[in-house]
Amino acid sequence: MNPAVDPFLNELKTRTEVVDESLRGAFEKFPWPRTTAIENLKKSMGYSLLQAGGKRFRPHLTLLTAEAFAVNPRKVLPWAVAIEMVHTYSLIHDDLPCMDNDDIRRGQATNHKVFGETTALLSGDALLTEAFHFIANSFEQESAVGLRLIRLLGEAAGVLGMVGGQMIDLAAQKDQAVVDELYLMHKMKTGALIRAAVEGSAAICGLPFEKVQLCRQFGEKLGLAFQIKDDLLDGVSDRFENHSFPGILGKDESKKILEQVSFEANEILSSLGLTKNLLNELVSYNLNREL
Amino acid sequence: MNPAVDPFLNELKTRTEVVDESLRGAFEKFPWPRTTAIENLKKSMGYSLLQAGGKRFRPHLTLLTAEAFAVNPRKVLPWAVAIEMVHTYSLIHDDLPCMDNDDIRRGQATNHKVFGETTALLSGDALLTEAFHFIANSFEQESAVGLRLIRLLGEAAGVLGMVGGQMIDLAAQKDQAVVDELYLMHKMKTGALIRAAVEGSAAICGLPFEKVQLCRQFGEKLGLAFQIKDDLLDGVSDRFENHSFPGILGKDESKKILEQVSFEANEILSSLGLTKNLLNELVSYNLNREL
Repeated sequence: MNPAVDPFLNELKTRTEVVDESLRGAFEKFPWPRTTAIENLKKSMGYSLLQAGGKRFRPHLTLLTAEAFAVNPRKVLPWAVAIEMVHTYSLIHDDLPCMDNDDIRRGQATNHKVFGETTALLSGDALLTEAFHFIANSFEQESAVGLRLIRLLGEAAGVLGMVGGQMIDLAAQKDQAVVDELYLMHKMKTGALIRAAVEGSAAICGLPFEKVQLCRQFGEKLGLAFQIKDDLLDGVSDRFENHSFPGILGKDESKKILEQVSFEANEILSSLGLTKNLLNELVSYNLNREL
Repeated sequence: MNPAVDPFLNELKTRTEVVDESLRGAFEKFPWPRTTAIENLKKSMGYSLLQAGGKRFRPHLTLLTAEAFAVNPRKVLPWAVAIEMVHTYSLIHDDLPCMDNDDIRRGQATNHKVFGETTALLSGDALLTEAFHFIANSFEQESAVGLRLIRLLGEAAGVLGMVGGQMIDLAAQKDQAVVDELYLMHKMKTGALIRAAVEGSAAICGLPFEKVQLCRQFGEKLGLAFQIKDDLLDGVSDRFENHSFPGILGKDESKKILEQVSFEANEILSSLGLTKNLLNELVSYNLNREL
């Protein structure tokens, strides 16, 4: 038991219920056409989206951002749902045979292992599409905010974000990546959606432009810290992938960078007036987490 | 030479240039990150999006809708671009080995045959995402219209449209489809995006609610007529796929339905005050086209 980690995780527990309930609610309320083929699609999408065991890191982050600025976290729930749908789509496509070809994810069979490649591909396509659709339906009364969220999600998920980062990552698995590319890759592949989670929440909360920009910077630092920590945890007996931070820079240097980036994340929070906030605890939690 | 077809195709030619120029413009102006991996992604996306030979049916339809209501067609060009991006993504994913496993599309090698499965998958994901992103960037000053377009595109591309229709189609290839499912499948798989092209254009043009609804109905009829015609043209020596209109209802009955649906499409146009419009000619063109 790590005393620095557990109180924070307990703090998150009630929020996990709220997030899971929102995801399930959005999923069940959707007007699914009643035909066998689409019931299969629904099962496949639900299997990955509602499966227990996900950390729900990005949804938590949207809620904590709202709370940090004393806004009712319910306001950002649709954004949390859309972000988690996009995250889930990316996991399903990443696991496909033509990508990482993984059989197991979070201790359970990957989507294509259960439902077949065709359905997995289409489930991913559907989750990505429905994320945008869900934002458009949820923010109808606040169209300027809604369209801004679409822009942020497009930036985070597309060529400038997850897809672009994935391309760089796949190329780096063949050739040893250089340090510049390593930063760019992580900024795009995982960092962009984490950044968007924070920035979008700040936008929904109606924060002024300058504060939204600071939130964006915080999200970027946090995303990087999160990825370096994941890279460190992914190593088995100090052996690391050659396209990871410890694989290129070594374990000790990576730990130093993780601490530096986490320090910078807290500095940005401090400039937003947040010093003993749950967002600060999230930064510490990431530093110390063991899974 | 079919005299009913050629004058109309000539009429479309100048518009094809405008559409292709908009697609190329949007593509080139995009802030592509400068790394080798993403240059590959760009090539793959451009190969399918900008490849000569596409009918550009959906973009033309958006322009013709604007013109029918005396609105400058330039207003709907971003919508035309987004729709064509989504159409292109669907072709790339449909051709993948786990889907239709096609090597040739429009006389050229399919995307995954040229760039590999991984890049083709990611190109499709990127085109889908960037379509939403592009709308959000293009309609920033008209956010209510922009968010409405996102909603229409989400409806047309996701579970209620293309992805759902694709699932029904794949199931129907195994078991003989029943007539009800055949209509539902076509309405979703190809009809939904054609419907969205018309409805979205009408919305951009600022037509009142009732007229936008009529445009939606027209788009739905046209989409169905377009698909039945495609099904009829796909038959080789009067042999048809068992999940197509002629495969289930026979060639003669399918032709009758095509004529009936085209008649209904013109009736709706007439109720919109359009009788000798290019949209009427488009309905006739579809009836008579030979490819």
